[in-house]
Amino acid sequence: MWYQREIQLSAKKRGFHLITNEVLRELDAINNIETGLLHLFIKHTSASLAINENADPDVRHDVEAHFNQFIPEYAPYYDHTLEGSDDMPAHIKNITIGTELSIPISDGNLKLGTWQGIYLGEHRNHGGVRTIVATIHGQAI
Amino acid sequence: MWYQREIQLSAKKRGFHLITNEVLRELDAINNIETGLLHLFIKHTSASLAINENADPDVRHDVEAHFNQFIPEYAPYYDHTLEGSDDMPAHIKNITIGTELSIPISDGNLKLGTWQGIYLGEHRNHGGVRTIVATIHGQAI
Amino acid sequence: MWYQREIQLSAKKRGFHLITNEVLRELDAINNIETGLLHLFIKHTSASLAINENADPDVRHDVEAHFNQFIPEYAPYYDHTLEGSDDMPAHIKNITIGTELSIPISDGNLKLGTWQGIYLGEHRNHGGVRTIVATIHGQAI
Repeated sequence: MWYQREIQLSAKKRGFHLITNEVLRELDAINNIETGLLHLFIKHTSASLAINENADPDVRHDVEAHFNQFIPEYAPYYDHTLEGSDDMPAHIKNITIGTELSIPISDGNLKLGTWQGIYLGEHRNHGGVRTIVATIHGQAI
Repeated sequence: MWYQREIQLSAKKRGFHLITNEVLRELDAINNIETGLLHLFIKHTSASLAINENADPDVRHDVEAHFNQFIPEYAPYYDHTLEGSDDMPAHIKNITIGTELSIPISDGNLKLGTWQGIYLGEHRNHGGVRTIVATIHGQAI
Repeated sequence: MWYQREIQLSAKKRGFHLITNEVLRELDAINNIETGLLHLFIKHTSASLAINENADPDVRHDVEAHFNQFIPEYAPYYDHTLEGSDDMPAHIKNITIGTELSIPISDGNLKLGTWQGIYLGEHRNHGGVRTIVATIHGQAI
């Protein structure tokens, strides 16, 4: 069984955001899968998908602070500067963190750990609406 | 054909560990797959999965040294410090390295390169037992 | 429907290279898939796969400059130095950027964003020919 759709994420400010609920409310099809996988793919090169802690919002703050420190704006070796000082770091953050994720499905639900949620890394100052392609495949219940 | 199970990894000290054999001895089901994929997903936000060199243990030492240098403890911009100085770096290491992997299966075996093995990155000082969800899907032999 | 083959990439110089066309010209089988996924897995521990911008070549230059700065050669804590000064950084770049990718397929084509292409990160000075395992699975058209 295969199911695929695009999901539009509302515009978010630069930083890391917990999007588990925003994604799952569009994916009732997961409830029909006994054993399978959900694949998420963000169709942008300046935003990322990751899995991390779903509880303390300080974690998301610190993750953003870390990547701003170690993937800086205005590095002297950047040639690609025409699209703004946040653009080239956004590309490198995307390559470092990743564009896509697969998450196991079991008995109609995502098989995440207790403390795991889905993160959007929005790396542009004004990234706007972002599009994810969600692909579900598995054995029907 | 779909097959899914959880695997408990024995507690390991902080650092990078080659876990290919510890994982595969729980996954005889791979031998029944002609063409397919093995998906591994670690249910924790302070440990990682990666593929890298299976030979010289110095590589694992140097990988640990690198990430300790470039994802440091006690960074002045960390707000999330209550769970210990190793906790926030562990979350960032997980986001940088990754939570999940897919590996091709061919003729009943993983199709890894000669020098490739599966790494667990244990980022906590005392992480304890770790759980992986393994999902196998493909065409039966 | 499952389809798997190995693709040999021509030898490339150290740096990031757009390989979308070099990969896709070997994968006509994608055209037979209505809904599915393409999985790419590089069988090496010193080269990487990523998705990023397919337009301005300055982006690839800046990505290479960034990773050379933040995953340096000659770090004082490296023990694994016998294979050359580019070897240990190459392993760490691979762990940071990644070994494998899944990309959605829809109506016989990859469902990439407008600005997305497939990158090879060649991290060795003389890496030579590289091998990718491509696995396609999905519903036939």
